[in-house]
Amino acid sequence: MKVAEMIAPGIQGIRTTTRPLGLVGRGEALVRVHAMSLNYRDVLIAEGLMPLQYPRVPLSDASGEVVEVGEGVTRVRPGDRVCPIYYQDWMSGPIAPSKLLRDRGGTCDGVATEMLIIAQEELVKIPAHLSYVEASTLPCAALAAWSAVMDSGKAKPGQRVLVQGTGGVSLFSLQFARMAGADVIMVSSSEAKLDRARALGASSGINYIETPDWATAVLDLTAGRGVDLIVDVIGPSTIEKSMAAVASGGVISQVGVLSGFTINVPVLPLMSKSVRIQGVINGNREAFEEMMSAVAMHEMRPVLDRTFALERLPNALEHMKSRSHIGKLTISME
Amino acid sequence: MKVAEMIAPGIQGIRTTTRPLGLVGRGEALVRVHAMSLNYRDVLIAEGLMPLQYPRVPLSDASGEVVEVGEGVTRVRPGDRVCPIYYQDWMSGPIAPSKLLRDRGGTCDGVATEMLIIAQEELVKIPAHLSYVEASTLPCAALAAWSAVMDSGKAKPGQRVLVQGTGGVSLFSLQFARMAGADVIMVSSSEAKLDRARALGASSGINYIETPDWATAVLDLTAGRGVDLIVDVIGPSTIEKSMAAVASGGVISQVGVLSGFTINVPVLPLMSKSVRIQGVINGNREAFEEMMSAVAMHEMRPVLDRTFALERLPNALEHMKSRSHIGKLTISME
Amino acid sequence: MKVAEMIAPGIQGIRTTTRPLGLVGRGEALVRVHAMSLNYRDVLIAEGLMPLQYPRVPLSDASGEVVEVGEGVTRVRPGDRVCPIYYQDWMSGPIAPSKLLRDRGGTCDGVATEMLIIAQEELVKIPAHLSYVEASTLPCAALAAWSAVMDSGKAKPGQRVLVQGTGGVSLFSLQFARMAGADVIMVSSSEAKLDRARALGASSGINYIETPDWATAVLDLTAGRGVDLIVDVIGPSTIEKSMAAVASGGVISQVGVLSGFTINVPVLPLMSKSVRIQGVINGNREAFEEMMSAVAMHEMRPVLDRTFALERLPNALEHMKSRSHIGKLTISME
Amino acid sequence: MKVAEMIAPGIQGIRTTTRPLGLVGRGEALVRVHAMSLNYRDVLIAEGLMPLQYPRVPLSDASGEVVEVGEGVTRVRPGDRVCPIYYQDWMSGPIAPSKLLRDRGGTCDGVATEMLIIAQEELVKIPAHLSYVEASTLPCAALAAWSAVMDSGKAKPGQRVLVQGTGGVSLFSLQFARMAGADVIMVSSSEAKLDRARALGASSGINYIETPDWATAVLDLTAGRGVDLIVDVIGPSTIEKSMAAVASGGVISQVGVLSGFTINVPVLPLMSKSVRIQGVINGNREAFEEMMSAVAMHEMRPVLDRTFALERLPNALEHMKSRSHIGKLTISME
Repeated sequence: MKVAEMIAPGIQGIRTTTRPLGLVGRGEALVRVHAMSLNYRDVLIAEGLMPLQYPRVPLSDASGEVVEVGEGVTRVRPGDRVCPIYYQDWMSGPIAPSKLLRDRGGTCDGVATEMLIIAQEELVKIPAHLSYVEASTLPCAALAAWSAVMDSGKAKPGQRVLVQGTGGVSLFSLQFARMAGADVIMVSSSEAKLDRARALGASSGINYIETPDWATAVLDLTAGRGVDLIVDVIGPSTIEKSMAAVASGGVISQVGVLSGFTINVPVLPLMSKSVRIQGVINGNREAFEEMMSAVAMHEMRPVLDRTFALERLPNALEHMKSRSHIGKLTISME
Repeated sequence: MKVAEMIAPGIQGIRTTTRPLGLVGRGEALVRVHAMSLNYRDVLIAEGLMPLQYPRVPLSDASGEVVEVGEGVTRVRPGDRVCPIYYQDWMSGPIAPSKLLRDRGGTCDGVATEMLIIAQEELVKIPAHLSYVEASTLPCAALAAWSAVMDSGKAKPGQRVLVQGTGGVSLFSLQFARMAGADVIMVSSSEAKLDRARALGASSGINYIETPDWATAVLDLTAGRGVDLIVDVIGPSTIEKSMAAVASGGVISQVGVLSGFTINVPVLPLMSKSVRIQGVINGNREAFEEMMSAVAMHEMRPVLDRTFALERLPNALEHMKSRSHIGKLTISME
Repeated sequence: MKVAEMIAPGIQGIRTTTRPLGLVGRGEALVRVHAMSLNYRDVLIAEGLMPLQYPRVPLSDASGEVVEVGEGVTRVRPGDRVCPIYYQDWMSGPIAPSKLLRDRGGTCDGVATEMLIIAQEELVKIPAHLSYVEASTLPCAALAAWSAVMDSGKAKPGQRVLVQGTGGVSLFSLQFARMAGADVIMVSSSEAKLDRARALGASSGINYIETPDWATAVLDLTAGRGVDLIVDVIGPSTIEKSMAAVASGGVISQVGVLSGFTINVPVLPLMSKSVRIQGVINGNREAFEEMMSAVAMHEMRPVLDRTFALERLPNALEHMKSRSHIGKLTISME
Repeated sequence: MKVAEMIAPGIQGIRTTTRPLGLVGRGEALVRVHAMSLNYRDVLIAEGLMPLQYPRVPLSDASGEVVEVGEGVTRVRPGDRVCPIYYQDWMSGPIAPSKLLRDRGGTCDGVATEMLIIAQEELVKIPAHLSYVEASTLPCAALAAWSAVMDSGKAKPGQRVLVQGTGGVSLFSLQFARMAGADVIMVSSSEAKLDRARALGASSGINYIETPDWATAVLDLTAGRGVDLIVDVIGPSTIEKSMAAVASGGVISQVGVLSGFTINVPVLPLMSKSVRIQGVINGNREAFEEMMSAVAMHEMRPVLDRTFALERLPNALEHMKSRSHIGKLTISME
């Protein structure tokens, strides 16, 4: 079967090759992969964020069809449309180190392959209204956004949520916040991106190129109150403005590190506004299933940018690095 | 000024008379009342639910315009459109007996009058899109629904909420649950009422006359799972079905007593499904303000049934008793 | 190996016999059972609460030593002192019907046997300071008490907790509430029992034989405020007094059904005090492990009543039915 | 009456003088001040943290006896022993900018005076077992510790809490965490301080002079798990070690700024451990009353360092700056 492999550090260290298909064991399912999606962590991993054992199959997010099941499998059957979960051992309950040991495309082989053999517990069914390409975008970015907006943020009607840019986590956060009845303000770098955000339900867009002091613009938009939740995917370069723009008692969900690895948090507003800064990293399978129910109920569709063939995975990762995309970059096997 | 008074037990013990207008004291505002709304508790109180000191001005819910303010008033100014809060001493924080001592139209004189003198802390501003008649429906029923759906129920996208009938609390609960992204199932007695519920966003309606075993119908609609939240305004006659229709880990928010004063709760499903039965009674001023923000953000409009003149208050209460209404019964002073 | 079996309805339908020992499979451990403990549910099950497939091994609670492990076992090793969890499939996260399908001594064979073969995921290690007999009391009653006091009740310093009688759940609730810094009031039927409760840290004891109106006594003890949490193991006969004795915003954790299967809840105080009635039934493995950490940290010891030999299990169950015990009834295999 | 005043920036800009006593108005009480206590914020304010309107009476924390009440006062009566609350407008509910406008010894005159005229709503009664000097330590530091440990940290039996040094907030946090059944690890600079912490119930002490890498020592003490809660009063110089020492899903309550005003938070562990950093600043009056109930129930006594006369307030502040104290520095008027 066709498979992509990282064989050396760097995006150009990825090649497409073939591997033999293994046997489907007890409790496992064989899934024909129809689509995959990319996350910024795939760029970081390809570029050497952490030591890898080469060759390593990249990517964490995919969707596909169950084509065969092993003995004792009850959760899925052939024909089911499914996504694998991101953290293979995080089924339920709060985060714990033992639940994060295995993540696809990082500590374990990923999903950039034609066929996956996977434990039944690690599969979740896909809402009927979604295509495979759409569904492939959900395991990592959408669930992180869901956790940021629903669990750490507890967005609800009457609240205001701020999202940054038009990457996957930000657009999913926008969509989930709207779904939960909250108002959304988007901060981004171009009118085209802001128009897209407005089309998805954002009430306001702030162009940070034209309005570098976007925190003051946020206060103006909110009668001086600030926003109840900021889903921060950027990190260092935004934290000071985020602290200024967040309301008393508000939350900053930190879900990304696009601009670096240390945030310099001013302590006085942290204390005097009792702000909570909450690290967020994906979620458990039960949360994924809850999210899927919400996505199905609202017939929500992920925002898709370009779709690539598997052989063009390095190009897709370069495209992600350029940050010119709006929504998710995907790989289609069809 | 014109005022309605209860002078004897029973709906027919209500008359319209006049009283002199008092002086506006420090920290107080004079409000010209434009509209009032009725709640089932007004029927119960008129009929002698608790001993009253006669004469007593009935009704808790009103809206009006500030026409004069006393010394030291900063929260409102003349021209502001406002509602008084329901529990006069419940500004913030959790429920406490000391915060419930004074409620209008019960332990204190109510709002069925042309002019109200009222402490500034007890006033909340009305969203711009609402008429006075619409706004008058919010202090009691809407806030109880908000507390039931948002605080005790924590409705969110992907969840399912069940509401019963087309009284004020039920329709507000439907609207708030939809606003928060949840799916709503309505149980009611007629197709006309169910059609109205569907028009407000309910995904399903169950006619309990045709389908007396509505709990089984709910399980059928939810793939056997049951609903996450039931806003129960009925009490005794529904609790057994509610316990059958609620999901594991679900909540029954008890907000009303239409059918009596004791609910016979089966303990085994209470335990084996870890159900929470949560008594709900209105909310504090901060919750009222949050709700107002949500109502404004979503331009939500209360469902209105008939509007009466103040002199016809007894007729309005009789109409409420008949339970043929859909939405709120109101009094207009215009 | 020696094993007890229910072969017909009724406590006298239990006999001791022998069964062959099975094979230890992949992921399983062989545990030599040293002790077991009894719960009131064992009486109810023996007496026919639900249909059983005979013969059925009774009892859910045990402790023992791992003597052999199957292939792939990493959670335990020979020599480890362990307890099995109560619900075999409830590892983590909120309650769900699929997690409650298997409970020992009910839907599945129980622990009243010399040797158990058990999946490694279902075993939890025992704190070092506890004997086997002491540890055997923890899986059902202690975890239910932990859930009632810590999760549904969130007991903390300054709060007041009321417990009823001297059964297992009540005494564990007393101990956990004290551990969490709360004050405890015990309601019981004899001075001997109340003395025991005081020795365990209860600040007050109310003899309900001498003071049938114990709710008023509770209000007197709490300056009219009532208690923040009631762990109710009785059900029908106490709910009215519980509703009177609970504080505004308080919680009644319903963990038992000693007096029947329906509680008649007065709705007006439920609403006007915003009381929460929370069904509680055991907890997940993660909660069990948290509880074990707390028990170890505080070197807490369960209160033991009489210990029986396995052959005398029917006598032990009869003793439980008589309700003359203080604390847990146990079976020792030594 | 005797009063201390800040008349110029710097600790030496404080002098003792006299002012005339005002009139007790409606809703107010006259309180004879018996004791005051110092907080590090008093040093920061004296040294010019924010612009002040001179002369300004310093200090926020006091205790005293009600000697006279104005018209309409019902909360207190002459003879009552009381403390004023810290934020004069934060009675209940979540933090909001409007509730923090007035704080004594900062934006308003403080308590460093013989007599205080104060609104009845701002007074809370003192537990009987405490002396005035002891009680004076509670409004600022103890309530901040209570909020950090109980509200943002939700300490409970089985959890581990880390506190830093022997200032007021740290020792109160130690005491409250123990009260709530948690284990406490103290990190401090001397054996004398660690001994004192052990005497108050800390299970372990780490001397960061001898063990600069105290985070690794914490991991060793907790089987690699880390602590559930860190009450961080230091800020910049500790955050990196705090992030290493906190458990997955743990909380860092930021309650102080002893070492500077910006914390450099490493984002990867923030995310991969889903850590919450929660700014904490005092609490509302209802929380203060809850804390007082807990202090009374446990007969908890604040740890006192030296006591000064009012005239020696500058010396007391210098002593605080030296950070050689263990527990609270106080002023006695007796």
